[in-house]
Amino acid sequence: MAAPPAAPPPARAVDLIGRKRDGGELREDELAVLVGGYLDGSVGEGQMAAFLMAGVLRGFSDDEALALTRILEGSGEVLDLSALAGPTLDKHSTGGVGDATTLLVAPLCAAAGAQLVKLSGRGLGHTGGTLDKLESIPGLRVDLAEDELLRIAGEVGCVVGAQTDRLVPADKALYALRDVTGTVASRALIASSVMSKKLASGAGTIVLDVKAGDGAFLPTGAEAADLARLCVRIGIAAGRRCVALVTAMDQPLGRGIGNALEVAEAVRLLSAPPSGSRLAGVALDLAAHGVAVARHGDVRTVAAVRRELERRWGEGEALERLRAMVAAQGGDPRVCDDPAAVLPAAPVVLPAPAPRAGTVTALPARRVGELAAALGAGRARKGDAVDPAVGLDLAVEVGDAVEAGQPLAMVHARDRGAAERVAAELAALLRIGDGPGGAVPDLLDVIR
Amino acid sequence: MAAPPAAPPPARAVDLIGRKRDGGELREDELAVLVGGYLDGSVGEGQMAAFLMAGVLRGFSDDEALALTRILEGSGEVLDLSALAGPTLDKHSTGGVGDATTLLVAPLCAAAGAQLVKLSGRGLGHTGGTLDKLESIPGLRVDLAEDELLRIAGEVGCVVGAQTDRLVPADKALYALRDVTGTVASRALIASSVMSKKLASGAGTIVLDVKAGDGAFLPTGAEAADLARLCVRIGIAAGRRCVALVTAMDQPLGRGIGNALEVAEAVRLLSAPPSGSRLAGVALDLAAHGVAVARHGDVRTVAAVRRELERRWGEGEALERLRAMVAAQGGDPRVCDDPAAVLPAAPVVLPAPAPRAGTVTALPARRVGELAAALGAGRARKGDAVDPAVGLDLAVEVGDAVEAGQPLAMVHARDRGAAERVAAELAALLRIGDGPGGAVPDLLDVIR
Repeated sequence: MAAPPAAPPPARAVDLIGRKRDGGELREDELAVLVGGYLDGSVGEGQMAAFLMAGVLRGFSDDEALALTRILEGSGEVLDLSALAGPTLDKHSTGGVGDATTLLVAPLCAAAGAQLVKLSGRGLGHTGGTLDKLESIPGLRVDLAEDELLRIAGEVGCVVGAQTDRLVPADKALYALRDVTGTVASRALIASSVMSKKLASGAGTIVLDVKAGDGAFLPTGAEAADLARLCVRIGIAAGRRCVALVTAMDQPLGRGIGNALEVAEAVRLLSAPPSGSRLAGVALDLAAHGVAVARHGDVRTVAAVRRELERRWGEGEALERLRAMVAAQGGDPRVCDDPAAVLPAAPVVLPAPAPRAGTVTALPARRVGELAAALGAGRARKGDAVDPAVGLDLAVEVGDAVEAGQPLAMVHARDRGAAERVAAELAALLRIGDGPGGAVPDLLDVIR
Repeated sequence: MAAPPAAPPPARAVDLIGRKRDGGELREDELAVLVGGYLDGSVGEGQMAAFLMAGVLRGFSDDEALALTRILEGSGEVLDLSALAGPTLDKHSTGGVGDATTLLVAPLCAAAGAQLVKLSGRGLGHTGGTLDKLESIPGLRVDLAEDELLRIAGEVGCVVGAQTDRLVPADKALYALRDVTGTVASRALIASSVMSKKLASGAGTIVLDVKAGDGAFLPTGAEAADLARLCVRIGIAAGRRCVALVTAMDQPLGRGIGNALEVAEAVRLLSAPPSGSRLAGVALDLAAHGVAVARHGDVRTVAAVRRELERRWGEGEALERLRAMVAAQGGDPRVCDDPAAVLPAAPVVLPAPAPRAGTVTALPARRVGELAAALGAGRARKGDAVDPAVGLDLAVEVGDAVEAGQPLAMVHARDRGAAERVAAELAALLRIGDGPGGAVPDLLDVIR
């Protein structure tokens, strides 16, 4: 007689890694062994990295992504927004260049009666971060305690704070490892990272802006839509209302690329009725979908909500909410009256002239973002300081006709050498052709 | 004007990992950045593990394997055998069950005038290790300094010592990481690990025994032949003479599986003219190919050399060399006269009876090795102690006819409970069918 079967031993990390390496699927309790073990040190950094790389190359199922999201969400504190009266909203972007949508979406949603509580991160690489932009406003604080977040959201309708280490610590630990091990680019890992933060932030409705294109994590609209679908599926499975917009990030979205420059652009836009600005259009689309879903659970009313938001914008309600939010977070509210008088300015501002006449056919977002980062607007490594004043103020976008010598952008720099270098590089990377002009669409897909 | 191109920055680990993740090939200097960085701490454990997993799933080119071998070889000391007079030989097995070939090959080669210096490792999992087997001989030392190795090789013609930490430290570090991260099973990583140790051990001729089958790393003969081809290519590129035999490891090679049991079997075999034993046959094949290549640079004379080795064996020369090696390494040479009087014996020895009559059709090597390890003959983790006395002494092999109740093996155990459990499991895993008997070949391929 063989020995009676013993109780199954706890799953060993190396066996779980091997299963993923061979294309298998892991259950939630098995994923929890790995993630929990990584946090408590019983699963080594090498084991977690090998598992992540196996997952990047072999793929994770949607069920695995959902399970990972729950594990990450449950690894720390969660924000309780139940004390707020209105429908609660959260907004997330996968990261873009010249992408100040939060500075428009947050006050727009607040103006429409939603309460938007957004915990944000800092910029890294070629993409900017909302916290860095807000901190270019003198006095403004983003390190807000939970009671401050709730109070400001209740009083103003919107608040943007820094994510604390107590929220989804497992995501923070995993992301730091993914960042140095070439394992960022995984649909399931991106979705679980994004959605665990959104779920832990407590809002009833989540509106996602998934970027597609040269300046985004995901170059194609199809990949971005796949990521958006998975995020929405995870949000709905967790009992939240969720909608995702896939938007173009082949060229910078706004004209300003740099922290104070983007704040100034947002204030300028909100100070007048909504224009044909692509940034304004995407912000209206995001806010309209978020508010429609928050109010009604679906997007059937989105056109009417968008018209309502345009009206409120035109009547100055959104600017008023932005002013109130800035003041509530300790910032100088006069930034909403005269940005130039309040925001830091770069000592050198030089034009980048067009080398020839024609039509702008490409303005690669990633490279433009890298140029702004090289001026000091972004950080190469976590923890680096950013220069709030520097950046680019684009004068053109794809489809525009230009004359030779016409400024393509104003370069805001610390010194003349940096400004001249970046002006030359911008002129070299911007493509000017002879084809017809015309705007390109920004809203590529809506995922429910 | 764009800025003049700067000197290329040193390769960043995360970029190199990303290149391998995407299926690219790395140059030797780039691989050295990773391996060297891992040793000096500038490349993290997670980065190295992610790189290894990417390589396991995307594959390494033969050039990468050769480069990795050189990097590992150069990471520590190398043994200088130039003071030895005869042709120097080294032998390596990828690891089997009941595989005491080194105990036969080393003295056979020595008897033929070659000088075999083998640095060996310890057993792990279901496979045994030559050091563990030798250490079952009372007094025998394997921790030999370089001058001792050279002296014994010069005087006796063969010596088997423990690999020190100063030899290929990078391989040791990488293997420890691969072991816990599911990244062992890679042709290029196995080849570079094996060959870096062999190159650093300094012999002019290397004979490899690459196992194929259920009890081997590689289940199929084709995979084993691919590994053998890569190892030989690396050896020749490094200026060594090199030959590889692909041999079967579907069933245990020898009858003894356990440290003292395998030493006893080797002594028993060498005490009489070469028999029909499969272990003796593989040992003769390995020694004949190694000596032929060491003498002549090719295998054309291998049949004549094999006949010469059989003659020397029959005249007792090989047993004499084994006795001299045991004595030179501090062991009790009387083991070569009466193994039972010298080697440790297990307190309980029980037969494992055949449950039915028929022909043995399968005796799965891996499971048999695991049974011996469960008795204490092997170690589950590096650093565990092994019990020299316990193990299995098989009475049958594939193709043998058995009667119901006939002993399939004698189980040598610490206590009766363990012996009975293992006897039952052995009877259950050994397959007995009704087909015709007949031996199966062991030598599957010769790679030059």
